[in-house]
Amino acid sequence: MTYASIVTIGDEILIGQVVDTNSSHLALALEQAGVRVREMLSVPDDGEMIEKTLSEALLRHDVVITTGGLGPTKDDITKAALARLSGSKAYVEHPGQLAVVHRILKGRGLDVLPINLAQAQVPETAEVIVNELGTAPIMVFRKVRGGGTLYALPGVPHEAVGAIPAIMADIKAHQHLQDICHRNVMVYGIAESSLSELLAPWEDALPKDIHLAYLPNTLTGIRLRLSIYSGSTSEQEARLEQQLSRLKEILGPLQYADEDTDLQTAVGKLLKQAGKTLSAAESCTGGEIAHLITSVAGSSAYFLGSVTSYAVSVKEQVLGVSPAVIEEYGVVSSAVAAAMAEGVRKLTGSDYAVATTGLAGPGGDEHNPVGTVWIGVAGPSGTQTVTYCFKHDRKRNIQRFAAAALNFLRLQIEKDLSC
Amino acid sequence: MTYASIVTIGDEILIGQVVDTNSSHLALALEQAGVRVREMLSVPDDGEMIEKTLSEALLRHDVVITTGGLGPTKDDITKAALARLSGSKAYVEHPGQLAVVHRILKGRGLDVLPINLAQAQVPETAEVIVNELGTAPIMVFRKVRGGGTLYALPGVPHEAVGAIPAIMADIKAHQHLQDICHRNVMVYGIAESSLSELLAPWEDALPKDIHLAYLPNTLTGIRLRLSIYSGSTSEQEARLEQQLSRLKEILGPLQYADEDTDLQTAVGKLLKQAGKTLSAAESCTGGEIAHLITSVAGSSAYFLGSVTSYAVSVKEQVLGVSPAVIEEYGVVSSAVAAAMAEGVRKLTGSDYAVATTGLAGPGGDEHNPVGTVWIGVAGPSGTQTVTYCFKHDRKRNIQRFAAAALNFLRLQIEKDLSC
Repeated sequence: MTYASIVTIGDEILIGQVVDTNSSHLALALEQAGVRVREMLSVPDDGEMIEKTLSEALLRHDVVITTGGLGPTKDDITKAALARLSGSKAYVEHPGQLAVVHRILKGRGLDVLPINLAQAQVPETAEVIVNELGTAPIMVFRKVRGGGTLYALPGVPHEAVGAIPAIMADIKAHQHLQDICHRNVMVYGIAESSLSELLAPWEDALPKDIHLAYLPNTLTGIRLRLSIYSGSTSEQEARLEQQLSRLKEILGPLQYADEDTDLQTAVGKLLKQAGKTLSAAESCTGGEIAHLITSVAGSSAYFLGSVTSYAVSVKEQVLGVSPAVIEEYGVVSSAVAAAMAEGVRKLTGSDYAVATTGLAGPGGDEHNPVGTVWIGVAGPSGTQTVTYCFKHDRKRNIQRFAAAALNFLRLQIEKDLSC
Repeated sequence: MTYASIVTIGDEILIGQVVDTNSSHLALALEQAGVRVREMLSVPDDGEMIEKTLSEALLRHDVVITTGGLGPTKDDITKAALARLSGSKAYVEHPGQLAVVHRILKGRGLDVLPINLAQAQVPETAEVIVNELGTAPIMVFRKVRGGGTLYALPGVPHEAVGAIPAIMADIKAHQHLQDICHRNVMVYGIAESSLSELLAPWEDALPKDIHLAYLPNTLTGIRLRLSIYSGSTSEQEARLEQQLSRLKEILGPLQYADEDTDLQTAVGKLLKQAGKTLSAAESCTGGEIAHLITSVAGSSAYFLGSVTSYAVSVKEQVLGVSPAVIEEYGVVSSAVAAAMAEGVRKLTGSDYAVATTGLAGPGGDEHNPVGTVWIGVAGPSGTQTVTYCFKHDRKRNIQRFAAAALNFLRLQIEKDLSC
């Protein structure tokens, strides 16, 4: 087994100014590759603490990855600590990273100052992987003081995440990793405990070398990950395929994808496949459904638009919901969800439309407690509605409503496609 | 100075399944109270590692706070480690927490199983702060092995964050903390480096005991925090007020609030104050502006609704943007942003309307590179537009566009209010 430690460097983490998301991305990539992360640490911009923490981590781990501490104003502290650790007596300039520094600053219309040039200088013992996304290089120090290998990454999240493929390739080339085969299945519409019960007979019969993990998320449901740790041959892949087929039969419509994705991407894929368009009418979700759909690049191919109808007047005058229906059933009702979906479908001329009306909170009463939502989907084969009650706070209710609406829409499109 | 260590417990963190946001919330609360966080650590669900890590942390820190490791299926590992650490020979049941366990499971329609009852049992040396939000109690172990005090919190984010006020009160009661006076000012529309230049003369003249911190955020701009570490008397508060007045003069319209808040809340406050209503028309922001506005509880008092006009047909037929204007100026233009704002204002009958049209990416050309946005605001005193170019990826561009639009709207409402 190969062991890793992830260390973030920077005062901004320790005073709570910044949430560290880099460590989680790194941990996921390491775990997928079969490297076990045994600790994560955060240390301040303090040379002695950086040196002490890293030297201890390198004694006990094969791989130590740091993020942060390499910005233009502070990288002298971190680099000096890395130089001491790795026994470097001098700094050398890296021409590849220097070219990136010039290119980036020129692109921003800024002069290249000495402080910027210094970013392309690294301790002489460092191997450099050029960071094309920022001015700080990615540095590799092999077998530091006879211990593990240290990878120093920039802290800016898109630069740190951007460095992951390169450092994972380096780790795979230099460590003796197990060859692992992974496959993902996305599930929505069932609690983790119920899913676990549903899958128990199949899971109990799984071959010993096939491992199942449950990875739940509010917006995307539960990701099931199947892994074979005994090699990645075509034979092993075929064995995983076989289990995925069994799983698909058991899960039925609960499964929405056989790869790592989200509901808005899955819905987009179905719409493209069917050659159909979509619109949305949102009350309680207040724009979150449109936001999720349009967060997918290329969504303009199928998403025409949406109406957020927060006021009753907008429901009536823009979406054409009848005042009599609102009067009779109330705003949070199946009839209004259906009328909103039909209204925005007509307004935009889309093939499908999804609508939400509910109470994200605060407020609510006995009839419609906080967390109540009605979802309507109008499409070529008619209009369907469904209701849920989630008991969370406003922000989490909005997320749950939006995910449930995308899933209900997904089910209707799948039904139409299978006819 | 009082020193703290924050430790998260749980395999889910170390395999990258979950991003640890609890530590950041804790760090912010500790730092605000004048406690210095010197390290953050994550350890797996492994009794020996938990015990070793905590015992080392307690030797070197006055306060150690853990989150996680207390769920119904795993808390035996963590609690056994805490019992060993604190010299507990037995577990005792806490009646207050037991009542919460019964209440919560009954609310979910679930039976109370032995595994649930065990959650209300704590090592005999623990003081309990009842967790009303979940089944796991908050435990306090004072001066463990003669060292620091340990606070063990549940890992579920809203439970951990919910526990912060109680444990901060306990820390303040038991540690000799400096009395600190903080005030916040929110700024939007200027880069951190330019703001720093603008404020330099004032900042250089600040009394030595008044400290300034810059806390930047993509969606909310830069929070400036002024702190006096020499006590929290009415005299000190008056001295901070005086600096805030000076700051307000220097910042002018760059300042949007004199408390810790966000743009959507500030806009809502202005609209309530003016007794005016709002609508939105979104192209490139795809619903994010409506989502931000409606994430504020009570926004239905001023927000009527919005149209996401992703397709040109929706811009023309729903918002009434003239095809000739689109033909002449292009979709990403000042004229279309203005027409969209005026269109949705007329459609919903709102007092104000904000609109966006731009390119979040990918794609773009020389004329309109990725990151280009035109923002329009229509209101009682006419229509204004502004353009920006942010050079980020799709998701970050959408956030920057939405924040810039809310800020431009804020400026127009403020101008009208001051007339």
